[in-house]
Amino acid sequence: MRQEDPVATTTEIDAMRRAVALSARALGATAPNPVVGCVILDTAGAVVGEGWHRKAGGPHAEVHALRAAGEAARGGTAVVTLEPCNHTGRTGPCAQALIEAGVARVVHAVSDPSAAASGGAATLRAAGVDVEGGVLAAEAEAVNVAWLTSVRQGRPFVRWKYAATLDGRIAAADGTSRWITSPQSRADVHRLRAEADAVVVGSGTLLADDPHLAVRGIEGAVQPLRVVVDSRARITTKARVLDGAAPTLVAVSKDADTAHLPGVDVVRLPYAAAGPTEPLTTAAGPAEPTTTAAGSAPAATAPRGLDVPALLAELHARGVRSVLLEGGPTLAGAFVKAGAVDAVLGYLAPALLGAGPTALGDAGISTIAQALRLDVTDIARLGPDLRITAVPAGPDGPAVPASPAVPTAAQEK
Amino acid sequence: MRQEDPVATTTEIDAMRRAVALSARALGATAPNPVVGCVILDTAGAVVGEGWHRKAGGPHAEVHALRAAGEAARGGTAVVTLEPCNHTGRTGPCAQALIEAGVARVVHAVSDPSAAASGGAATLRAAGVDVEGGVLAAEAEAVNVAWLTSVRQGRPFVRWKYAATLDGRIAAADGTSRWITSPQSRADVHRLRAEADAVVVGSGTLLADDPHLAVRGIEGAVQPLRVVVDSRARITTKARVLDGAAPTLVAVSKDADTAHLPGVDVVRLPYAAAGPTEPLTTAAGPAEPTTTAAGSAPAATAPRGLDVPALLAELHARGVRSVLLEGGPTLAGAFVKAGAVDAVLGYLAPALLGAGPTALGDAGISTIAQALRLDVTDIARLGPDLRITAVPAGPDGPAVPASPAVPTAAQEK
Repeated sequence: MRQEDPVATTTEIDAMRRAVALSARALGATAPNPVVGCVILDTAGAVVGEGWHRKAGGPHAEVHALRAAGEAARGGTAVVTLEPCNHTGRTGPCAQALIEAGVARVVHAVSDPSAAASGGAATLRAAGVDVEGGVLAAEAEAVNVAWLTSVRQGRPFVRWKYAATLDGRIAAADGTSRWITSPQSRADVHRLRAEADAVVVGSGTLLADDPHLAVRGIEGAVQPLRVVVDSRARITTKARVLDGAAPTLVAVSKDADTAHLPGVDVVRLPYAAAGPTEPLTTAAGPAEPTTTAAGSAPAATAPRGLDVPALLAELHARGVRSVLLEGGPTLAGAFVKAGAVDAVLGYLAPALLGAGPTALGDAGISTIAQALRLDVTDIARLGPDLRITAVPAGPDGPAVPASPAVPTAAQEK
Repeated sequence: MRQEDPVATTTEIDAMRRAVALSARALGATAPNPVVGCVILDTAGAVVGEGWHRKAGGPHAEVHALRAAGEAARGGTAVVTLEPCNHTGRTGPCAQALIEAGVARVVHAVSDPSAAASGGAATLRAAGVDVEGGVLAAEAEAVNVAWLTSVRQGRPFVRWKYAATLDGRIAAADGTSRWITSPQSRADVHRLRAEADAVVVGSGTLLADDPHLAVRGIEGAVQPLRVVVDSRARITTKARVLDGAAPTLVAVSKDADTAHLPGVDVVRLPYAAAGPTEPLTTAAGPAEPTTTAAGSAPAATAPRGLDVPALLAELHARGVRSVLLEGGPTLAGAFVKAGAVDAVLGYLAPALLGAGPTALGDAGISTIAQALRLDVTDIARLGPDLRITAVPAGPDGPAVPASPAVPTAAQEK
């Protein structure tokens, strides 16, 4: 064991593994809060209580677990995936609850990086509780990566999902795409939606596919916010995404006409600034000088998308911590260009088309040295398909922790 | 055990596994012959001789193994990956050699489908030898798939290899592609070349990359025939592929001018017939009627490639049994269109480009129902990259047997 390794018994490590799995049950349901799981061990090391944070405003994981344990918690150990909170929000501070329950030791995985809640470990230690942090930290970080990223970066964590053939096509030359991937892959996408706080598509996908974007087939799933990025407000009230199955937000440009969308939740955002790689030229030569300040309409021959950071800031302000970006290629390209893709999930169908639109459109990359390099963190087979998970490669490896195979509620026995 | 399962001892099955591995050592070196491995067991079941067919014109696997076994073969068992031959070619018939060596039993994996050689099992049985076929047949078929395909279809087996980013790009927008994939992937491609009888590229790849196509870094490798499909004979004698490192064949159209290629091995082939999906139209409307018979030049506005079946027939006639198709997208599309891709090897680099040429060009597929469906038979990690192996899906599964992980010479201890 290295000096800096946390000291924990195998019983505690097993309990932490269980706590991480419990926390994952609430993915997509706790925003703007993290997911947290807790297991209480009695003085003999037996599990006497379990709990997980189920939704914002509801009891924290520790409170659920302490209630289940009752008097058996006294002198025992609380194993919790995140450092217990120290603040009085809608629920009381968990550090205090643990002290009052007589817990002798607290083992946690990840330290709380949020300013308002931190200090729980210090409060516990001051009350004479033995505290050990960093146990199974990587596993717990992976499950909480969306919330941790949002705290650290001040914007939601973005997963980009696409479904393509082995040769990278998301549809055939005539636009048909039902179904490129298998029922197993499509079911997995519903799980992704259920675990996300918001699902985002662009107007191209909206007009081509009229997607619904709500979660189907997952009992108890919290529906994500459906977000349509539609600068010119081309959506109509007949769009399936505007039904009542889940809330929906339409992001339009500052000057878009939205008179045809009464009662629709609309947010007005600036256009993305034109970068050096997209001069506003026409076939006849450089365009007339145009105002490129935020909010101005782009030249008709070079339409730009809405500003991705502005969109993410709006979503963050609404409590969204994890975004599932479902494309298409133009919007995905804009997110990649903005450096706002934190994980890539490619569903690859073993099929060849040789023509048709590709998964990723212009991302401002013109030469091989500028390629966005990734690290593959997982490969899974879903029926006939492959699901490849990758994250942007940092200078010393993945920029975010790799996602190990975390048991979901359905996989736990 | 099912009624139709072959009867073999575990010692014989172990010996067959070894024989299959031995046979794989000569992949790429035996054309137009199959690869064959043989292990001789004595009366007690001990291994007393091993051998594999090393090159056409050289001794067959059984002869190598019998020589190593000497008198110990008498009363023993010959375990061989392919039914022993019955014909007198450049070497004597193996069935006769086994009988003369006094072998009491012959266990083979795959029956010999070639008309000239078949009948070995019958000859052995007539001489009183106990013969059992079908042992580890799938494993042995997978290693010999190129030769078996060529016997059954009368054309070489074609593996299409491409290297692309996760979003399906084989180069960036400016054409740069060095290096999309890792050194490990590139080394693996040299192994593929070494195991192939011919490596085929189109003129687009030739002009863009000036590839060398010879095998590097594999000791004892037999160089494949390098084939450039170059209908208009745009290659020059300065092309690296025309150096002396390996033989090279340039396939041109019947009317191409090849006066600038003295001493170059040139074959003249017809153009592909225009299919219903590629009418010879120009932007102004239907083109003038053109002669579309084989050998005529296509309209300049709709250049067609050379006829793929004619190319494969020419290669088959030259003894080529396995072809590694190294692209690019236009030639790969023509092969897919001709139904002449038997296996796909995609080397996927975890990177995103968002622009640039795609791996597969027009294959005559315009709608999703026409997609060429595949079955993934293997996924491997090569450094940071993934290698995905797939074969066209038959109505009841893969059209050719899946390739299990067969130990290569380097992997055997």
